[in-house]
Amino acid sequence: MKSLDAKAEELDAKSPFTHVRERFRRPDGTVYMGGHSLGALSSNVPAALEKAVLQEWGQGVVRSWIDWMPVLSALGERVGSLLGAAPGCTAVGDSTSVQLFNALTAAARLRPDRPVLLTDPGHFPTDRYLADSVARLLGLRVHRVAVPDAAEFLRAHGDEVGVAAYPAVDYRTGELWDLPKLTAMAHGAGALTVWDVSHAVGAMPLDLARHDVDFAVGCTYKYLSGGPGAPAFVYAAPRHQEFLDQPLTGWLGHAEPFSGEEAYRPAPGIERTRIGTPPMLSALALNAALDVYDDVELFEVRSESLSLTSFLIDCADELLAGRGFEVVTPRQENQRGSHVALRHPDAYPLVRALIERGVIGDMREPDLVRFGCNALYVTHEDVYRCVVTLRDVVDAGEHRDPRFRLRKAFG
Amino acid sequence: MKSLDAKAEELDAKSPFTHVRERFRRPDGTVYMGGHSLGALSSNVPAALEKAVLQEWGQGVVRSWIDWMPVLSALGERVGSLLGAAPGCTAVGDSTSVQLFNALTAAARLRPDRPVLLTDPGHFPTDRYLADSVARLLGLRVHRVAVPDAAEFLRAHGDEVGVAAYPAVDYRTGELWDLPKLTAMAHGAGALTVWDVSHAVGAMPLDLARHDVDFAVGCTYKYLSGGPGAPAFVYAAPRHQEFLDQPLTGWLGHAEPFSGEEAYRPAPGIERTRIGTPPMLSALALNAALDVYDDVELFEVRSESLSLTSFLIDCADELLAGRGFEVVTPRQENQRGSHVALRHPDAYPLVRALIERGVIGDMREPDLVRFGCNALYVTHEDVYRCVVTLRDVVDAGEHRDPRFRLRKAFG
Repeated sequence: MKSLDAKAEELDAKSPFTHVRERFRRPDGTVYMGGHSLGALSSNVPAALEKAVLQEWGQGVVRSWIDWMPVLSALGERVGSLLGAAPGCTAVGDSTSVQLFNALTAAARLRPDRPVLLTDPGHFPTDRYLADSVARLLGLRVHRVAVPDAAEFLRAHGDEVGVAAYPAVDYRTGELWDLPKLTAMAHGAGALTVWDVSHAVGAMPLDLARHDVDFAVGCTYKYLSGGPGAPAFVYAAPRHQEFLDQPLTGWLGHAEPFSGEEAYRPAPGIERTRIGTPPMLSALALNAALDVYDDVELFEVRSESLSLTSFLIDCADELLAGRGFEVVTPRQENQRGSHVALRHPDAYPLVRALIERGVIGDMREPDLVRFGCNALYVTHEDVYRCVVTLRDVVDAGEHRDPRFRLRKAFG
Repeated sequence: MKSLDAKAEELDAKSPFTHVRERFRRPDGTVYMGGHSLGALSSNVPAALEKAVLQEWGQGVVRSWIDWMPVLSALGERVGSLLGAAPGCTAVGDSTSVQLFNALTAAARLRPDRPVLLTDPGHFPTDRYLADSVARLLGLRVHRVAVPDAAEFLRAHGDEVGVAAYPAVDYRTGELWDLPKLTAMAHGAGALTVWDVSHAVGAMPLDLARHDVDFAVGCTYKYLSGGPGAPAFVYAAPRHQEFLDQPLTGWLGHAEPFSGEEAYRPAPGIERTRIGTPPMLSALALNAALDVYDDVELFEVRSESLSLTSFLIDCADELLAGRGFEVVTPRQENQRGSHVALRHPDAYPLVRALIERGVIGDMREPDLVRFGCNALYVTHEDVYRCVVTLRDVVDAGEHRDPRFRLRKAFG
């Protein structure tokens, strides 16, 4: 049997992204497996931001808005093209939480006679909390039904469901849900779908238009590497845009933002999802970061990502056997996102000890170690070093160091 | 009588901010009077952003959140100190629109039995639109009553009013409203106040704590010069924080954001107003921009600002007489913010022609030319040149050039 390190070398030699990797400035002396949380810095960003600050803000000042606004619209289209969206269906701005609140409310208002908001009990916290908040404001009931049981629920009670809000990928386990099937099931019951694709966008084709998704939101700082807190996005199917009635009726979503009209009159198309003045420096960093996708095919990203996560699971099986780890990410490729989660009771100190060794992953309570495989810059060699280091940390008991037990606020 | 240019020179010689002006990089070859819309670039920003990108994001990557989160909290305190807030009452993030939606809803929920949301018919569009949206969601009625009539309305119908939402400064005319008096009137009627201080913060002391203001929101890209779309802020009086029940229940406002708890449990204190992941690059630019206030006293800013706006009105009276202009900004100092608005039927082409001449102001529909006097970098000499140029433009008929009549999206 070929050794894992030889296999890593062989697989990396076949990577279509060797030249792409050089476009990222990964942290020196580390193996960076945290791109499912915050993507690495793309080389185009520093110069773009310097220009944004010195020239556009410094010299252009308020005059630069005339150039910035088209960048914002173009940003929507760039993200949209990575979602499989038709033009005019995607807008960038605000945080995922804010976009989700807007989208959930707007979707529920399109199904005014249906009292149930169906969502995932394992959804990302912000998605769960905001579903409760929207339900309270609109007088709806939240039903929490896990994805595997959602089809059955929709069959039995679908006529009560206005909106089904689910994640494309589970943020803890990395499980990829069947978005086309659940969307079709919801539609079959007359409900609308709001997908949070934060853990999928940029890592795989999503084909939102082809799958007839109603609404989607997501963040741009994970696989898209847009920078810390980079603006989020919203997708709305063309058929809903004209009727989209959102609660955050900010001035920039108005048909004529500078008219000062007395009443809110939404802009045509996706522009109506805009709210207030967007954080342009963060938006311009995102815009530069997206350049990396200009000559990248998402099906190749997906294929390389699966190769990396498969290899990570192989490494875990072989190198971590008998050390208390459980691979919780599905082994079946069509059920897997782009990160791998390992369950271990010492997840937190393990991740801290790993970081001390220069291998950067993260953890989710109570017991999951997560490693993100952004195919654009992570190699099989990285994956191998990551798992070998994890084994060495466990074997040396480095995670038992008391200073790794103390929780940091942002560990 | 002393000539205006001699007077400008004399007044500038007395300015307490000669050394501060050098901390800004104003656009070359221009007179920048647009700081009430987008503040000029502060010299500390470029290096801070370069460090944020190359070191914090590039090298620290996801590990940097442990440093960024305390910066966010400190940012709240820095802005709070400019509001006259006690510590722990101010948070920075999102857009003014989003903060306003949260604050209006939270305020209205503190007065559940009062059906009226009182607001200014001349409020900034986002404030008007969001008042309508919040009223619709909570089943309230919006009453639009101008500030001069608000006292009378509160006397007659105050027991129905839950929330009074007003601007500190009128965004068009630059009129400064009597925040202490209206706050006291609202409290006398049992109502709460939500102030939008976007056009006041950084230009004058606000003393929100002393005046017992309940809630305030505002932007940081005008007088605070935080950068295009820099994050907004919210102020909440200590007495309300424990009961603050906001609609945008994002993960970052949770008491333990990483616990993944099933239900939303708000953080103690002002941290509960957080929503989603904040745009850190924009926040770090703001943080560097605020350095300029470290050795600046707001009462001196206010005094210099009044000197500038008074001088602008004097220049307008003398230089623009008989040219169709009307000074709409109050001549009484305690009724004036930090910009001056001149009414003229050709406001739009005049501003375009002025920009062509290197004098940057802006306009608001239908007929107001606005000039912002940020005392930290605008001089009396700038003011003089601005008004002289405006006179010259009018006299030469430069604004009649057809290309200045065509509206740009962001003029």
